[in-house]
Amino acid sequence: MRIGILTSGGDCPGLNAVIRGAVLNGIKTYGHEFVGLRDGWRGLVEGDVMELPRAEVRGISKQGGTIIGTSRTNPFEGERGGPENISRTMAELGIDAVIAIGGEGTLAAAKRLTDAGLNIVGVPKTIDNDLDATDYTFGFDTAVSIATEAMDRLRTTGESHHRCMVAEVMGRNVGWIALHSGMAAGAHAILIPEQSVTMEQVNEWVGQAAERGRAPLVVVAEGWIPDGAEEAFSTRGLDSFGRPRLGGVGEQLAESIEAATGIESRATVLGHIQRGGVPTAFDRTLATRLGMAAVDAVSDEAWGMMVSLRGTSVIRVPFQAALNNLKRVPPKRYEEAAILFG
Amino acid sequence: MRIGILTSGGDCPGLNAVIRGAVLNGIKTYGHEFVGLRDGWRGLVEGDVMELPRAEVRGISKQGGTIIGTSRTNPFEGERGGPENISRTMAELGIDAVIAIGGEGTLAAAKRLTDAGLNIVGVPKTIDNDLDATDYTFGFDTAVSIATEAMDRLRTTGESHHRCMVAEVMGRNVGWIALHSGMAAGAHAILIPEQSVTMEQVNEWVGQAAERGRAPLVVVAEGWIPDGAEEAFSTRGLDSFGRPRLGGVGEQLAESIEAATGIESRATVLGHIQRGGVPTAFDRTLATRLGMAAVDAVSDEAWGMMVSLRGTSVIRVPFQAALNNLKRVPPKRYEEAAILFG
Amino acid sequence: MRIGILTSGGDCPGLNAVIRGAVLNGIKTYGHEFVGLRDGWRGLVEGDVMELPRAEVRGISKQGGTIIGTSRTNPFEGERGGPENISRTMAELGIDAVIAIGGEGTLAAAKRLTDAGLNIVGVPKTIDNDLDATDYTFGFDTAVSIATEAMDRLRTTGESHHRCMVAEVMGRNVGWIALHSGMAAGAHAILIPEQSVTMEQVNEWVGQAAERGRAPLVVVAEGWIPDGAEEAFSTRGLDSFGRPRLGGVGEQLAESIEAATGIESRATVLGHIQRGGVPTAFDRTLATRLGMAAVDAVSDEAWGMMVSLRGTSVIRVPFQAALNNLKRVPPKRYEEAAILFG
Amino acid sequence: MRIGILTSGGDCPGLNAVIRGAVLNGIKTYGHEFVGLRDGWRGLVEGDVMELPRAEVRGISKQGGTIIGTSRTNPFEGERGGPENISRTMAELGIDAVIAIGGEGTLAAAKRLTDAGLNIVGVPKTIDNDLDATDYTFGFDTAVSIATEAMDRLRTTGESHHRCMVAEVMGRNVGWIALHSGMAAGAHAILIPEQSVTMEQVNEWVGQAAERGRAPLVVVAEGWIPDGAEEAFSTRGLDSFGRPRLGGVGEQLAESIEAATGIESRATVLGHIQRGGVPTAFDRTLATRLGMAAVDAVSDEAWGMMVSLRGTSVIRVPFQAALNNLKRVPPKRYEEAAILFG
Repeated sequence: MRIGILTSGGDCPGLNAVIRGAVLNGIKTYGHEFVGLRDGWRGLVEGDVMELPRAEVRGISKQGGTIIGTSRTNPFEGERGGPENISRTMAELGIDAVIAIGGEGTLAAAKRLTDAGLNIVGVPKTIDNDLDATDYTFGFDTAVSIATEAMDRLRTTGESHHRCMVAEVMGRNVGWIALHSGMAAGAHAILIPEQSVTMEQVNEWVGQAAERGRAPLVVVAEGWIPDGAEEAFSTRGLDSFGRPRLGGVGEQLAESIEAATGIESRATVLGHIQRGGVPTAFDRTLATRLGMAAVDAVSDEAWGMMVSLRGTSVIRVPFQAALNNLKRVPPKRYEEAAILFG
Repeated sequence: MRIGILTSGGDCPGLNAVIRGAVLNGIKTYGHEFVGLRDGWRGLVEGDVMELPRAEVRGISKQGGTIIGTSRTNPFEGERGGPENISRTMAELGIDAVIAIGGEGTLAAAKRLTDAGLNIVGVPKTIDNDLDATDYTFGFDTAVSIATEAMDRLRTTGESHHRCMVAEVMGRNVGWIALHSGMAAGAHAILIPEQSVTMEQVNEWVGQAAERGRAPLVVVAEGWIPDGAEEAFSTRGLDSFGRPRLGGVGEQLAESIEAATGIESRATVLGHIQRGGVPTAFDRTLATRLGMAAVDAVSDEAWGMMVSLRGTSVIRVPFQAALNNLKRVPPKRYEEAAILFG
Repeated sequence: MRIGILTSGGDCPGLNAVIRGAVLNGIKTYGHEFVGLRDGWRGLVEGDVMELPRAEVRGISKQGGTIIGTSRTNPFEGERGGPENISRTMAELGIDAVIAIGGEGTLAAAKRLTDAGLNIVGVPKTIDNDLDATDYTFGFDTAVSIATEAMDRLRTTGESHHRCMVAEVMGRNVGWIALHSGMAAGAHAILIPEQSVTMEQVNEWVGQAAERGRAPLVVVAEGWIPDGAEEAFSTRGLDSFGRPRLGGVGEQLAESIEAATGIESRATVLGHIQRGGVPTAFDRTLATRLGMAAVDAVSDEAWGMMVSLRGTSVIRVPFQAALNNLKRVPPKRYEEAAILFG
Repeated sequence: MRIGILTSGGDCPGLNAVIRGAVLNGIKTYGHEFVGLRDGWRGLVEGDVMELPRAEVRGISKQGGTIIGTSRTNPFEGERGGPENISRTMAELGIDAVIAIGGEGTLAAAKRLTDAGLNIVGVPKTIDNDLDATDYTFGFDTAVSIATEAMDRLRTTGESHHRCMVAEVMGRNVGWIALHSGMAAGAHAILIPEQSVTMEQVNEWVGQAAERGRAPLVVVAEGWIPDGAEEAFSTRGLDSFGRPRLGGVGEQLAESIEAATGIESRATVLGHIQRGGVPTAFDRTLATRLGMAAVDAVSDEAWGMMVSLRGTSVIRVPFQAALNNLKRVPPKRYEEAAILFG
């Protein structure tokens, strides 16, 4: 078989390890050939490919990013988009099947294309860990590690200056990164989109920590908005690039805390450093296994399936299983964490 | 309740996070009091305790080691050992229950003591990840991370000098650390106690990598012995301290590879650095959750149960479930990894 | 002697190592006693002290921050400020001499107080490396390391998305952190306050890198303003906290580059993570040596002198030597770095 | 000009940054061409070269190792060795000058070849920091950082088990790595080849730390031998590979300490991880500057000179200046460190 691989959506540590795992397993176990489809669906739509012989994936599992590029191209748009055109392009390129590595949007598109008869298997990718039907996704552990290490640093400065430090982490819709990094760093408050919390409650947690002589550490996911203050926090909206405005929730939160408690407060937006660079060992191993399993699925012609982590096993689930629901932080996990606040 | 906590056996990153999670949950949710039993079972047997108020566990989840000390004391030995004496000591100290954090030996002892009527719940601890009935144990991810980072370093030196680098990692009975760190580091051979492999096979993998112009990286768990060469590899045995002799399997393997292939080979024994220092974010979060869950179990008087990770959930299982079998690397996991060798 | 130690101004990794070095050398070599003056000059002015016996400095050299707190209090203000009051307070507290660890403002104040007869020696502290009369200051190497590691991460994301990544680092008046981290990370442009550069030049460098297929990396010190565009870049000014507005130079630069070159551009503001957390080995050793040397200077009654790194030696220089000039990046160093741009 | 670059001797983080700095400066400032001489002097003697266009050095400054390989070949041996043969080979390859990156042996050879009329400039390279006429050499800071981080890990285990931890670091002839990493890690004893210390003294330091309730940390350079016990420590000598036998000084020291003090003691040999992998920011910047300066020296036809760090400046010194003396740790630096022992 000749298999195309694409990586789609935001960058995520472990993409290269998936690619390497797929290529090595495919070549050594099955004798497959591989091409990289450049920049996500764009490469498939436009037929823009690069050969992926074994030498090309040499040593890349520890490199962040993706050697085949990524983008947010929609495969149903443009004059060469849609299942019929893509099918023709695949035939022209001699591509028998596609491994699509991406998040919700990518998997939804893959499902539609598979339903239309294309040969696709999926690998779930989300730095935010918000895809259902998989225990974890690669990249998440790296993001949590980077955020935790940054918070370890912020804390010492908070304590030297008797300040409240606010760390804004990724998570527009879900708070997994905030929850895990906040627990790991011993945060005094963790604020996530799934949970309504008032500023009064936030200030109470901050005040409790300060009373015990600690420098309060507040972790906030970028998508959180305080209960009852939606307006004040949402006015700034998106900037001219369509991104959440810097001076976003973290900055506003620090201002609110300082105004209410009198405790000097500072915000740090961790931003893009959470999604780049060397993956953790956990993510490298997981990503390698997922890439290998994706090729097994292709070889079994398990179209419409994605590979997934369940406990310590890699299994297959239909695309739909990942698309039914956003995987939110369950209330129980938040309550567990909240015991440690204040 | 007044609860004693003990940490027993080898050091393991995350022990302090377990202690902090237990103490904070116990104080805030239930109003329990805590004491640390110094140096594992010794503290319980001898009644050597330290108070563990909230201030004592401040900021410790990111510290390696254990603030209450550890040892390999057997609670059934000595004139103050055994369930009756211990029961009396607990009464004298006003300790209602014990949280025992430890590995197979500790949990086996805890089971015997619980069977004799003592109030004990357990938290599984093994750097080697060899305890059954739990997906992972804290400390393992840190060990794998440290080993992987060390191998990343060894590789560059191997490639500069066109050498074969052998990394000896922990694992006397099981190869989990070798398997995960070796996969993460892209090793050309991984050798684990669970799997018989001949030196001919090892040399073939090394030779294949060298032929492709790579510097071979071989990861070996300290307990591996080559198939058919048990005698040669086992002669050196233990040193005067009862430890596997330095110049152990890694060194012998490097000599064998160099002799057979002509490729200059060097061994590095990672040793104690794998089990100390700052835990990874993964381990801190897991350990915190386990500590919290252990206190919930104590509060439910779930004597004889240990807390355990199943998928993303923390559950309870009887001690016996962890003791039935050593959790070995399954043949399937090794075969999966072996596809990448050579 | 009974010696007071104070840390003043912004947080800086290595402060605790200075304190430990001073206390250990003082106790072991001279039999001195130590007290910590809480929160910089405030502790001296208000007589707010903590004893610093040996046990108090145990293991702190690897901790970021300062165990005695810091602030930006001016010792000449308030009703207990000024040399006469301070002299009286020192007498009351039995403090014979003060070791003042701080930057330009601290050393200038120390000079005035010394001129008025107080017994003070100084230890230079500036994360920005902008103090004259010393080759390096502790904390700078840590800041450069953190910034470099963050840039390594940003690069992989830039390359996956074919974006220009802008990293904003500390440096309001000088560009040392930008220069060193930018060189270490292989930046395609480094922009520092000392050097006038037009946006045209910046865009040219960015374009050259993009033409060679690279994802441009631009490092900018927070105090840089493009030549000829002062107005556009300066309008946003300070926010209500008196801090440079988030959405500062990095964000504006990314917008300008994207608008001019058409290359998608993203900014990351590294912020407070650059000045907290575990110091590098370089900074720990340097800080320890400076702390030890400061006590030697006190013992020699070398009032008005600060300890300083010259090559590999720790020497003494008068406060004034550090105050004559801000240590700016010399044009030659910038020209050297600029050869690598584009 | 067409310039050959070679890297010779043991691996050292920063070699690739030197190569990149040289190539970029040479191409952009002077229009030079570059070839890599494979595996040190061997490539020059045998005429084994690889072209080094700009693309080849892309992104390598953060990679450990050397892309052109290294070896310990002596350029005066073999039938193609010696100045006349090498001169002829250079002419055949069109190589006008050579940049030799290496330690004492390499620079001594370079001096002899330069004296015989060859066009060579040098870049000092020693992980051990033992070359005279330069304040620091690249790679040293990385080695110290790795060793320090390892010791931070060992300490927590030492404290959990109340053990004495012995860390054996590189340094056969000089103790710079031991001195700096030991100071950074807060060691209770540092043992270096330059300084005679008896086992009685070592045991006293260990005992003092233990009495204060600390887990003693002893750092020993591989070349240290206790005063008065040369015989006992030297009997094991070299192994069959000509390397200092594992179970070397660290292991022997741990045995001696345990026997004398009764404190359980464990040794860890850090080994090859100290000389590989990602260089620190400090080393990347230093190495880049040295590579650039080496090309300036070639362009000035400054044959027989090596580039060197003096304070914060890169200067040129004759080869001989680096060869006159091994740069040992001065007694004053050791006495300064020893104040902190015990």
